[in-house]
Amino acid sequence: MNKVVIFGVGLIGGSFALALRKEQAVHEFVGFGRSAASLEQAKQLGIIDRIGDDVAREVCDADLILLATPVAQMAELFARIAPHLGTHTLVTDGGSTKCDVVAAARANLGDKIAQFVPAHPIAGAEKSGAAAALADLYQAKKVVLTPIPENSKETVARVRKAWELCGAVVSELTPQQHDEVFAAVSHLPHLLSFALVHDLAQRDNRDQLLSFAASGFRDFTRIAASSPEMWRDISLANRDALMREVKRYADELYVVYQALENKDAAKLEEIFSLAREVRNTWSQQ
Amino acid sequence: MNKVVIFGVGLIGGSFALALRKEQAVHEFVGFGRSAASLEQAKQLGIIDRIGDDVAREVCDADLILLATPVAQMAELFARIAPHLGTHTLVTDGGSTKCDVVAAARANLGDKIAQFVPAHPIAGAEKSGAAAALADLYQAKKVVLTPIPENSKETVARVRKAWELCGAVVSELTPQQHDEVFAAVSHLPHLLSFALVHDLAQRDNRDQLLSFAASGFRDFTRIAASSPEMWRDISLANRDALMREVKRYADELYVVYQALENKDAAKLEEIFSLAREVRNTWSQQ
Repeated sequence: MNKVVIFGVGLIGGSFALALRKEQAVHEFVGFGRSAASLEQAKQLGIIDRIGDDVAREVCDADLILLATPVAQMAELFARIAPHLGTHTLVTDGGSTKCDVVAAARANLGDKIAQFVPAHPIAGAEKSGAAAALADLYQAKKVVLTPIPENSKETVARVRKAWELCGAVVSELTPQQHDEVFAAVSHLPHLLSFALVHDLAQRDNRDQLLSFAASGFRDFTRIAASSPEMWRDISLANRDALMREVKRYADELYVVYQALENKDAAKLEEIFSLAREVRNTWSQQ
Repeated sequence: MNKVVIFGVGLIGGSFALALRKEQAVHEFVGFGRSAASLEQAKQLGIIDRIGDDVAREVCDADLILLATPVAQMAELFARIAPHLGTHTLVTDGGSTKCDVVAAARANLGDKIAQFVPAHPIAGAEKSGAAAALADLYQAKKVVLTPIPENSKETVARVRKAWELCGAVVSELTPQQHDEVFAAVSHLPHLLSFALVHDLAQRDNRDQLLSFAASGFRDFTRIAASSPEMWRDISLANRDALMREVKRYADELYVVYQALENKDAAKLEEIFSLAREVRNTWSQQ
């Protein structure tokens, strides 16, 4: 590729650039972002070659554009790039919800919607910012593409290729499937962990309670230390699927409650045994 | 101490012996247990000096008896030792619930109830059995004593001293307080984690779901790999407190659900922020 333009040169965007650079797959990286200081840092770190100052000019001849900003900013970015996208230019993103990003793209890309192939890289983000970017962040990590009906096969293949060059294992789901899957295995657990700590936090004896919390509590609540703003946005962006999951979980919890109420030892053991078996099988894969 | 008798020479009982042995605090350790092979192993490993074969004889002149079996076996053990306890002999245990153990002791120790000081060592148990026993298992770990009104100060002090010799940081709660605290910070999280995996396990698309589960899921569900039998017993032993916790958690979950339903971004952020703050403060202590 001759030119890749990245909006948001933080952990996700910066690592994308470093990974493609390592493969010598791109001639030039141009970065846009809200903070001049962090763009300057990204340039100093050799992540981008240039800081963009004219979206129209940079976007018209780009091979690929990555939107790696918070999802809430993407609608505006789609609107800014839409008038200037070259016919050859493809767009992908790094957002962790997909139906809302697709809706924003549809609303703002107009007849260029076919050039956008949504993506969700499943890569840890304990740190953030350009300084945290790593050339191997995506190595052997999953990236989920959620192509839309308008995408041509060739378009999807080109975006897939870019993520594969980053070392990612790429799979495909529909945007709807994606959001349902992640509501169940990621968004719900985060919500449950936040809720547990929030409940304890409101009690008069919270210090006493926490003084006896041990390693099980530590593991269970690690994700309750995640960014409140990011999880507020994800929760709302994937609200419908997440509400279904919370409802479903409340039903499951009631089953456990009833087993306790009925002193049903066999039922409790059955629930715990199946959970352990599935959890262990999964973790050994 | 001249003689310590241990019922159940596994991780908890074996580590207790090794820790006291390291301090040269005891002249002789005698072990009882259900499996002759594992007692033999404990002897080979230098954990106990002798395998007991006559409860009456070993118990009458022991300084301290530790019941380190599953809680479900303790009632029977209290009954077996009760007629033979020397006047100087004290009893403690290693069970993770306390009201039920106290009830079993009251029912079976008769007028010797004052000689029993309940204890709960908070020490990890990824492995089990005599071979997993460690001299430093209790080093800097919390042990909660839950004295009963019948205990004299001197009796509690002697049992406390034994656990402190093991390196433990000893604190005291009433049995009731203990069970309420651990329902909140340990038993409930285990139940929630089991419930999440159990819910996923029953779905038609569970393999697809699990194929996208990542590190957050891994942390959250680590405790769902715990022993189903042990957690069945703990759940039932601490049933009343645990049912209250599940109810309370369901209420909390409904608050989160309503925030989603009302698209209440501020409320979600408030919940997540307080949770993160409390979780981070706790983990830095």
